[in-house]
Amino acid sequence: MTDLGGALGARAAALRPSARASADDAPPFRDATLLSFNQATAERASLPDVIDACARHGVPGISIWRHKLTETGLERAARLVRDAELRVSSVCRGGMFPALSASERSARIDDNRRAIDEAATLGAEVLVLVCGAAPDRDIGAAREMVADGIAAVAPYAAERGVRLGIEPLHPAFAAERSCITTMREARLISERFDPANVGVVVDVYHVWWDPERAQEIARLGDRIAGYHVNDWLVPVKNVLMNRGMMGDGVIELRRIRGEIERAGYRGPIEVEIFNEDIWQTPLDELVRLTKQRFVEVA
Amino acid sequence: MTDLGGALGARAAALRPSARASADDAPPFRDATLLSFNQATAERASLPDVIDACARHGVPGISIWRHKLTETGLERAARLVRDAELRVSSVCRGGMFPALSASERSARIDDNRRAIDEAATLGAEVLVLVCGAAPDRDIGAAREMVADGIAAVAPYAAERGVRLGIEPLHPAFAAERSCITTMREARLISERFDPANVGVVVDVYHVWWDPERAQEIARLGDRIAGYHVNDWLVPVKNVLMNRGMMGDGVIELRRIRGEIERAGYRGPIEVEIFNEDIWQTPLDELVRLTKQRFVEVA
Repeated sequence: MTDLGGALGARAAALRPSARASADDAPPFRDATLLSFNQATAERASLPDVIDACARHGVPGISIWRHKLTETGLERAARLVRDAELRVSSVCRGGMFPALSASERSARIDDNRRAIDEAATLGAEVLVLVCGAAPDRDIGAAREMVADGIAAVAPYAAERGVRLGIEPLHPAFAAERSCITTMREARLISERFDPANVGVVVDVYHVWWDPERAQEIARLGDRIAGYHVNDWLVPVKNVLMNRGMMGDGVIELRRIRGEIERAGYRGPIEVEIFNEDIWQTPLDELVRLTKQRFVEVA
Repeated sequence: MTDLGGALGARAAALRPSARASADDAPPFRDATLLSFNQATAERASLPDVIDACARHGVPGISIWRHKLTETGLERAARLVRDAELRVSSVCRGGMFPALSASERSARIDDNRRAIDEAATLGAEVLVLVCGAAPDRDIGAAREMVADGIAAVAPYAAERGVRLGIEPLHPAFAAERSCITTMREARLISERFDPANVGVVVDVYHVWWDPERAQEIARLGDRIAGYHVNDWLVPVKNVLMNRGMMGDGVIELRRIRGEIERAGYRGPIEVEIFNEDIWQTPLDELVRLTKQRFVEVA
């Protein structure tokens, strides 16, 4: 199917980041003060090992996944991050609200309350919501279940001091992970709530292609509850595992950070990379590379 | 990575199309009058074989890809479709406008003129435009090159009686095939031209997830230059080859056809499926199945 292919080789060879600098781009980072290491980037490592590595390499923040929390134990995890003086930028993840039956939807809401408790115990600023896909073909009905689910858990999150961050996912995940696919859609849901209670998490992998990206980031303003960086590799093979280290793909990272900063966001910036090659990298090398690319490219 | 997975098995088992019928859904087809067989669905077959199979199975329309045209020869292809009395709904594809150098962009425009000539010779109603991706990381600049490219070829298309159909591609293709990813974006470009000259091709695979889908289809109105059906399979593996036969995936086909019909579209409906299993199916079985699913599900 040569006719389906793009001029990929030619394009990859032609990447010249410096040639595309614009006045709208954010300036380079001076240091890694805002860096938060999302644990999904080191899926093969345990939480205690990742905490140690962050401390060793001077990475100030961490984002913790719940399946890793289960392995380690919540109280122990909370003690470890406290002892390492790490900022817990978020817990991943709550959400997954749509389900066929009312009882299943109710069970999902209970699980979100548990996630809020875990985030509170860890001192995490945000619980990231991956909203869930339609349980049947009706994506419109699923979207209503998401809004209802968030409304059901938002008061509890406010009570526990945890902000909910709706993360719109790339439309490639619409059938399996999230019926909420655009920043605009996430913003419209978040606007039903106090921005301190419910915001939107912007991940470059999910939103870089959006023709309304710059406008939507500006409209989000103080609703931005988190910012995630990584890169979009070409060619795409497995779309879930297609994330790369910053600088290895096609995303205009400095352009997007410029948009984020102009919107007023000053919070931690997570590096979140699902990629088997990244996961095979020895932990120390991975954390060092993450910090280096963060400062040089993001 | 169990924590990344959705409740896919549960969902697949729960699919009950009839339970989700809505007053907004289009009624079932009575026959295959509007069916056009897009040749990409039978990538392993030659154009003469596909033309024969369409004629044999009472499929009234065909969409022809240029690489197949090259194999067969333009004049011979034109004679074969004329003899078989097939309606040529479109030629795939023109576009691919963005390039780093002005000379390469100019060469692409020349190639689009040749595609317009081929479409005119075949009596095709539409030349489908797959617009092309950014040659560097600057997707905004690529979008301008697309608009400029269409402006450069539109007068020639009008002269030759071929309508240009901008096909927004799923955002999963934004880095490799099309920086134009949403119906809204395609519409905004098309509105610079006479609707008879430049329209928008709506393919369910590319747009089913769009939260503004229904509104955008309504806004397109007489700018709809084509409608393509297939399905989105779960789980997604290779996103390019993830299309399935209508009814095998999660797309609300009747809902979307209702939107398309209310917008006023009465033209041919192409079945376009990139999928290795489909391509391995013997041609007669494939064309028979396509027609059957078209009538029963699309």
